[in-house]
Amino acid sequence: MPGKRVVIIGAVALGPKAACRLKRLQQDAEVTMIDQDEFISYGGCGIPYFVSGDISDVRELMSTSYHMVRTPGFFEDAKGVTVRNMTRALSIDRKAKTVRVQDLRSGAEEDIPYDKLVLATGSRPNRLHVPGGDLPEVACVADLHSAAAVKDRISRGEVDKAVIVGAGAIGCEMAEALSDLWGIETTVVEIADQVLPGILDANLARMVRKHMEEKGVAVRLSETVRGIERRGDGEGLKVLTSGGDLEADLVIASIGVRPNADLAVQAGLTVSPRGAVVVNRRLQTSDPDIYAGGDCIEVTHLVTGKSVVFPQGSLANRQGRVIGTNLAGGHATFNGVVGSFSIKVFDMAVASTGIHLKTALSEGFDAVHAFVVQADRAHFYPTQDLMYLQLTVDRKTRRILGAQGIGHNGDALVGRIDSIAAMLPYRATLDDLSNLEVAYSPPYASALDIVNAAGNTAENILDGYNRTMDLDAFEKCFLENRTDDVLCLDVRGPANAAPFVERFGERWMNIPQETLKKRIGEVPRDKRLLVVCNSGVRSYEALRCLDAEGVRNTANVQGGMAAVKKSGLLDVDDESEKQPEQS
Amino acid sequence: MPGKRVVIIGAVALGPKAACRLKRLQQDAEVTMIDQDEFISYGGCGIPYFVSGDISDVRELMSTSYHMVRTPGFFEDAKGVTVRNMTRALSIDRKAKTVRVQDLRSGAEEDIPYDKLVLATGSRPNRLHVPGGDLPEVACVADLHSAAAVKDRISRGEVDKAVIVGAGAIGCEMAEALSDLWGIETTVVEIADQVLPGILDANLARMVRKHMEEKGVAVRLSETVRGIERRGDGEGLKVLTSGGDLEADLVIASIGVRPNADLAVQAGLTVSPRGAVVVNRRLQTSDPDIYAGGDCIEVTHLVTGKSVVFPQGSLANRQGRVIGTNLAGGHATFNGVVGSFSIKVFDMAVASTGIHLKTALSEGFDAVHAFVVQADRAHFYPTQDLMYLQLTVDRKTRRILGAQGIGHNGDALVGRIDSIAAMLPYRATLDDLSNLEVAYSPPYASALDIVNAAGNTAENILDGYNRTMDLDAFEKCFLENRTDDVLCLDVRGPANAAPFVERFGERWMNIPQETLKKRIGEVPRDKRLLVVCNSGVRSYEALRCLDAEGVRNTANVQGGMAAVKKSGLLDVDDESEKQPEQS
Repeated sequence: MPGKRVVIIGAVALGPKAACRLKRLQQDAEVTMIDQDEFISYGGCGIPYFVSGDISDVRELMSTSYHMVRTPGFFEDAKGVTVRNMTRALSIDRKAKTVRVQDLRSGAEEDIPYDKLVLATGSRPNRLHVPGGDLPEVACVADLHSAAAVKDRISRGEVDKAVIVGAGAIGCEMAEALSDLWGIETTVVEIADQVLPGILDANLARMVRKHMEEKGVAVRLSETVRGIERRGDGEGLKVLTSGGDLEADLVIASIGVRPNADLAVQAGLTVSPRGAVVVNRRLQTSDPDIYAGGDCIEVTHLVTGKSVVFPQGSLANRQGRVIGTNLAGGHATFNGVVGSFSIKVFDMAVASTGIHLKTALSEGFDAVHAFVVQADRAHFYPTQDLMYLQLTVDRKTRRILGAQGIGHNGDALVGRIDSIAAMLPYRATLDDLSNLEVAYSPPYASALDIVNAAGNTAENILDGYNRTMDLDAFEKCFLENRTDDVLCLDVRGPANAAPFVERFGERWMNIPQETLKKRIGEVPRDKRLLVVCNSGVRSYEALRCLDAEGVRNTANVQGGMAAVKKSGLLDVDDESEKQPEQS
Repeated sequence: MPGKRVVIIGAVALGPKAACRLKRLQQDAEVTMIDQDEFISYGGCGIPYFVSGDISDVRELMSTSYHMVRTPGFFEDAKGVTVRNMTRALSIDRKAKTVRVQDLRSGAEEDIPYDKLVLATGSRPNRLHVPGGDLPEVACVADLHSAAAVKDRISRGEVDKAVIVGAGAIGCEMAEALSDLWGIETTVVEIADQVLPGILDANLARMVRKHMEEKGVAVRLSETVRGIERRGDGEGLKVLTSGGDLEADLVIASIGVRPNADLAVQAGLTVSPRGAVVVNRRLQTSDPDIYAGGDCIEVTHLVTGKSVVFPQGSLANRQGRVIGTNLAGGHATFNGVVGSFSIKVFDMAVASTGIHLKTALSEGFDAVHAFVVQADRAHFYPTQDLMYLQLTVDRKTRRILGAQGIGHNGDALVGRIDSIAAMLPYRATLDDLSNLEVAYSPPYASALDIVNAAGNTAENILDGYNRTMDLDAFEKCFLENRTDDVLCLDVRGPANAAPFVERFGERWMNIPQETLKKRIGEVPRDKRLLVVCNSGVRSYEALRCLDAEGVRNTANVQGGMAAVKKSGLLDVDDESEKQPEQS
């Protein structure tokens, strides 16, 4: 008796994983993978590193870790999986249980029968719907062909200036890819008022933007692209934006992706209003013989409980394994996502899990956030680097809703985010985080690590001990609105405070925290006091002291001067980045 | 009305944390911290880095992150806490609610009254109970005085050779401290048959030992110290061991610590058979007005459910906060530990959480472990480093019992261990780990990260798809017992396999995995086959193929040649470390 016939449409991430998992469990299954492209089974997330030159050969993205290229022949020999590339799936006949396909080389069509079918049709990049958005110099780098074409143009020296439309994850990665090694003059145009809109908190986004600008990328926020024209001289393009025109030899559109559910729609499967295939926890579509996973499906967000589209190569791999197991008769489930991601932007890592404050509020949570700055190692360890971490919690339940941060030691930052991500499915609370037992030794963590400190700080905020102020409020209240009734109380040592006292005069008062009790008489009681230190810890200590003395019109600037400076709000050399505090 | 009087005995880690937390919540509390030492509030875990020279001044271990030395005056001014150092607590009168103390400078005694008392008496290093174990050249480096004395001797050039007794965490750290920068000829003598006994799996311990030896440290296992004598020439010592005599100018005894519960015993508080103070989840002793925490207490191990002594500076800090909160009238709890730790040994990081296989079996779990080797980043990313991770699970419940690993990118390794540690209190299962949503991008993780791969591998073992063999079994079965009925089937490419075929002749057969099905006729059916590849992934694929062909007397060597070589079992240059596989 022959094994069951399984057809998989799409052979990039989820498809191969499902196919190989199934074959390992049931060697007699007959598995056919179909893909309209020539290239299959490649690491699409590696495209920016290929364009940048960090990865020299496009075949590295299609290779196994033991340097075999994953061609159709490789899948046949090593995995026992039949691959038909350059073959487009045209339609599904669920009654006959066949897929109509067309060989793109010969044009010939045929029906392939299946017992079980897998939709791994992925996503499509959104196109720039403006005049000129379809010019050949406007690229998407969403697949290896366009990535190779862009890199070819760069290698040939045809690109001096580039405009990237969209400052999402791909846009930021591409900004580095173009400007870092190639030295291309790069401008990023973003319609929102921050980089990484929708996925990163505004405080942190300020820091990422500043870092990009320090690396030579021009970042233009709150600007829309109105059209793209060829320049009069016939060489290159002019990008027309709401903020003015930009010259460019290359335009990259990175304005998001949308699920590719065309075949599912054609086959009459349930598709969500967002256009994504709807699946159950076993990753079956509305037809139990048809599975779907990867970028083309909707999943449950485990923090909000709502359905979301969250395209990630890592999820596609995990879902592929679940489908492979289930195709073999197993009972694996994919319960949902917590929304983890990471991005490298030049020397800065950005990592996140769960939801941030803005999303939490819009989802109806009574949410607050805590912002902490702390080193990645014990503060006495000789080498160290600061991490900036934002924690979002629900006031009533004290449940952790998410965490995100930036830092220059990416492994250290991602490790912290991953440890919080691991807790989210269990509806972990602040108590859990305060006692999260990270593996401590001075070279790798602090005795009270930043994740614990974030939990403790949030608890202090919820309990009313710590009244905080965010960077944007500090900007409005102190930097923009220069009234006399607001005073910065700097509780650091005189050396740290001096440059600010010099700059802001009577609006910046310095009383070191350890002298505050004795000098309490000097503290003005008729003004609002913004208490600052390097990171927000000594200022919290000062806040407690002021409270006890009846001075309560106060706020602690979260993240302290380290955060103020990291975000570019103030540029004064007080060495605060080098002398953070620990809670 | 004056605030409550709180007396804290012990001012190193837990004491200061509890004192400061309480004061921040209740500024009117009268807090007195007592310590018999001159030095207080120091980072004891930093001692090896001070001895090594990485930290130049002992005051750095006593400083805040903003470079203020935590003297009694600092605590008075900055924290409102009274410190009486050089003051020994002699006894507790629970009826009168007083602590009898003696000023070690003047000899004067007095009674200090308390409303609430905190025992932060820490631990004591075990002494070497052998003849000569009390010679002045035998040090413990358990406090700043002895650490400073050792460093002084080294700085003066008095130490050419050192013997470290005990290869636990401190012993391994001290081996690096003495030999790396100072170039001291260092020998570690350990009574057990592995380094880091009791806390690290034997497979991983082999790798740590090999690394130490590569760095020039002599490691002598299964040896006991019988005595220490002065050498005849009057310069230095002779350490008499069961394996022979060793010359030494310095001996460091690092044979563990035991809780210091003397005062608790004197006061009639409940103390465990192990000699640790017994506390409830609020960290109250059997007298509700007396709290205890840190190295002197027993805590619940959240994996085994049993009471353990787990001395860690990080736990002391967390427990200190819990006590501070409760002293202020709050309701904080410390539920227990999962047993996380990390150690840096030269260029190698060791990190662990939960329990390993040996412990799990002795605790009555029907446990198995999975061993995986994988890079810290996407395999196509230009820079990367291998991590070696061992996962222990319970067969019946599929619950994760622990994970530990080694790697040269410490932040990356610790991050993975921390993410698993975060799941342990929730009794997470393999399903949870397989879908653990680490923050993916190629510079920081693999699409299927090593933590997911470990979960998947364990699942494959439990489901009977992957029959594995450990390094020690491989050593016994193939390397030591050179019989004809066992054959290594190397499923890597010919270039990788060639050096082994040359060395082992007919006992080492090479059939690349992707050709296995076609060449199945060549596979001997009358022998036990040990299937190997670089990491254990292609060999698993091969195992599945062999199973389907009816060849089932097979085992997959876990961790593959990368692990075999990393542990020093075989030293052949096949470049396997550079070409690992991913699952």
